[in-house]
Amino acid sequence: MAKKFCFETVATDKKARVGKLVTPHGEVETPVFLPVGTQASIKSLDRRDLEDMGETEPQMILANTYHLYLRPGADTVAKMGGLHKFMNWDRPILTDSGGFQVFSLGFGIEHQVGKMVDLFSKSMVLGEAVAVDPKELVVRTKLCKIEEDGPTFQSHIDGSVHFFPPEISVETQEKLGADFIVALDECTSPLHDYDYTKTSMERSHRWEVRSLKAAKQRNMFGVIQGGPFEDLRVKSAKFVSENDFFGIGIGGALVSKEKMREILDWIYPHLSPQKPRHLLGIGTIDDIFTGVERGVDIFDCVHPTRIARMGWLLTKTKNFTLDLNKVAYRLDSGPIEEGCGCYTCQHYTRAYLHHLFRARELLAYRLATIHNVYFMMSLMKDIRRAIAEKRFAKLKENWLKLMQS
Amino acid sequence: MAKKFCFETVATDKKARVGKLVTPHGEVETPVFLPVGTQASIKSLDRRDLEDMGETEPQMILANTYHLYLRPGADTVAKMGGLHKFMNWDRPILTDSGGFQVFSLGFGIEHQVGKMVDLFSKSMVLGEAVAVDPKELVVRTKLCKIEEDGPTFQSHIDGSVHFFPPEISVETQEKLGADFIVALDECTSPLHDYDYTKTSMERSHRWEVRSLKAAKQRNMFGVIQGGPFEDLRVKSAKFVSENDFFGIGIGGALVSKEKMREILDWIYPHLSPQKPRHLLGIGTIDDIFTGVERGVDIFDCVHPTRIARMGWLLTKTKNFTLDLNKVAYRLDSGPIEEGCGCYTCQHYTRAYLHHLFRARELLAYRLATIHNVYFMMSLMKDIRRAIAEKRFAKLKENWLKLMQS
Repeated sequence: MAKKFCFETVATDKKARVGKLVTPHGEVETPVFLPVGTQASIKSLDRRDLEDMGETEPQMILANTYHLYLRPGADTVAKMGGLHKFMNWDRPILTDSGGFQVFSLGFGIEHQVGKMVDLFSKSMVLGEAVAVDPKELVVRTKLCKIEEDGPTFQSHIDGSVHFFPPEISVETQEKLGADFIVALDECTSPLHDYDYTKTSMERSHRWEVRSLKAAKQRNMFGVIQGGPFEDLRVKSAKFVSENDFFGIGIGGALVSKEKMREILDWIYPHLSPQKPRHLLGIGTIDDIFTGVERGVDIFDCVHPTRIARMGWLLTKTKNFTLDLNKVAYRLDSGPIEEGCGCYTCQHYTRAYLHHLFRARELLAYRLATIHNVYFMMSLMKDIRRAIAEKRFAKLKENWLKLMQS
Repeated sequence: MAKKFCFETVATDKKARVGKLVTPHGEVETPVFLPVGTQASIKSLDRRDLEDMGETEPQMILANTYHLYLRPGADTVAKMGGLHKFMNWDRPILTDSGGFQVFSLGFGIEHQVGKMVDLFSKSMVLGEAVAVDPKELVVRTKLCKIEEDGPTFQSHIDGSVHFFPPEISVETQEKLGADFIVALDECTSPLHDYDYTKTSMERSHRWEVRSLKAAKQRNMFGVIQGGPFEDLRVKSAKFVSENDFFGIGIGGALVSKEKMREILDWIYPHLSPQKPRHLLGIGTIDDIFTGVERGVDIFDCVHPTRIARMGWLLTKTKNFTLDLNKVAYRLDSGPIEEGCGCYTCQHYTRAYLHHLFRARELLAYRLATIHNVYFMMSLMKDIRRAIAEKRFAKLKENWLKLMQS
């Protein structure tokens, strides 16, 4: 009987590689970028908006366990036939562990990093630090408390209190029915010191082993932590490579771009080449090039869909961004980007989209999101082709030139 | 050479009639309901969402001159090739005169009727009455002033002041490039007394004659006013029937359901049978039956699209409304309505839509709007068929029974 989940490398160009992920919901070519469907919806899009992208259709998406655990609840999704059926998406789904959100409600707020800000609704979850004592390994904020058994957090929706150990994270993800799941870890803040980061990483490893034991299938990504410290990152990379995880998640890399490069360089020699590598929560276009160049296979980020709702459209121009809110586009009868094959560029002008954003028409968000998702998918396709043709370095150079143009 | 615009009656069932409107953008079968695209967008939908309704696709839509005059401006739309091209809609469009919005900023606010409330954004235009003296025929509020030459209003967007005489209304509508346009009138409030209503109606008639003279094509609807007063309504009906308007608009009918019936009965004998009749800004399902039964051919209303964004779905049940926000639908794996052919019902469950509304996901608004527009289009199709088969009264009875079920 064939394995349900497998990964193989198809082509390489130095450390960059093209791979094939096999899942119960079909194959995925890597490097791949996963649009994020936080609450079982890629904001403003439906199944067909993605399907219509044809060859450029997203191959896999990410959904957030934290959000779905709270609303509508994993049992609800399970009763509705699982996430694929619930949201009408029949290609692969990866769910995260919920850890990042749980901790971004704690340290994130305390350290002013990784706050849960919904840019669309402009609503912000406000936390209040109650007591911080890293030495005691118990950090309390209003919304999150960490103990050896697992974290306890308070819902940002209704204030209810939830104990969320690794076993519950895994059970939740399995009820959701994702193709790939992620082991529960603590995502430390870049502002944590060496001692706290080390203690946290070691606890994360224990949680990840518990996650692995709790899982029914061999479809779990372990997660490398260790903050900005080389020895910890190396230790964590070895831990994830050597344990029986299907894939390797690289967590807490959202620091500076320089530090991310360093971290990826430190861990590279210790990553099992047989396992797919997911740079969690990354990223922007330049970060994707940084990652692919260092052997990363999977990326996910809310960035392209979030900025779309602000009227920022991805284009091959300076900083890759065209701000449709600008009055310069009021009478512009061209598409967002000349030559783009996306539905929006095929049917609507910059002038109309500018109007929709000015008038805060709902349609604006969808049309802009279609373009940005399509743009990311096209980029990943170009990257895969360049690797197969051994010209990845040239492609990267051309794109980064555009960025600074 | 064939006439660009024409109307003929194809079938009748007592006063109810099936007609055919010919426009430069194709034919329209009446009775017809026009979804409203206030700001050049039927909120949350795009061209293809409508196109995909197939035989149930909206035949004609309404866009609001007041809103488009202010933003993006008629010149902008004209430079972009007109409203059809701008918004990518190649079937007929009717624009209103802008009068209703201009006056709803004045009397509407003063009398607490017809306020411009955007239920989605929860934003409300607040007006302040400065001086009211109906006897002097000059009513001032913060946002609107009426004189013989025309109204002057203040923009709800930026507070700028605009003189908006009939000639500007017509010029604006012609720049927008609508198939059908509407003469500028003053829409009085049901709280106005006989004297004010009469004086206002007579001034509206003068404005309408000026509108007619300003128009380049024979595609204008005159508007019947006269408030809740029989003699005024009859006088106004004769005025519109006898002047060279292409069609007849029935304005200010949004009073009580009983009064609307009365008004329609008073004016019926005085309506030219050759002209299509548009009951402006109406309506709900029962109001549509009331109108069709009294010879109305065209309806428009924001109701179905607005309630969709609140999670209220049109169904053949009590009050024709299913409130998807209710917890009862959390685990409901059925479609909004069994047997419905709309895209939403074909692809999504009540449970998923309930979740999207709870989570305030943008997709909720679009999927619900698709259903409600499809529902209205199906209703109108049923009405046309029933008239052609001389069983309109029976159809009406069945629907009103459902409503009270």
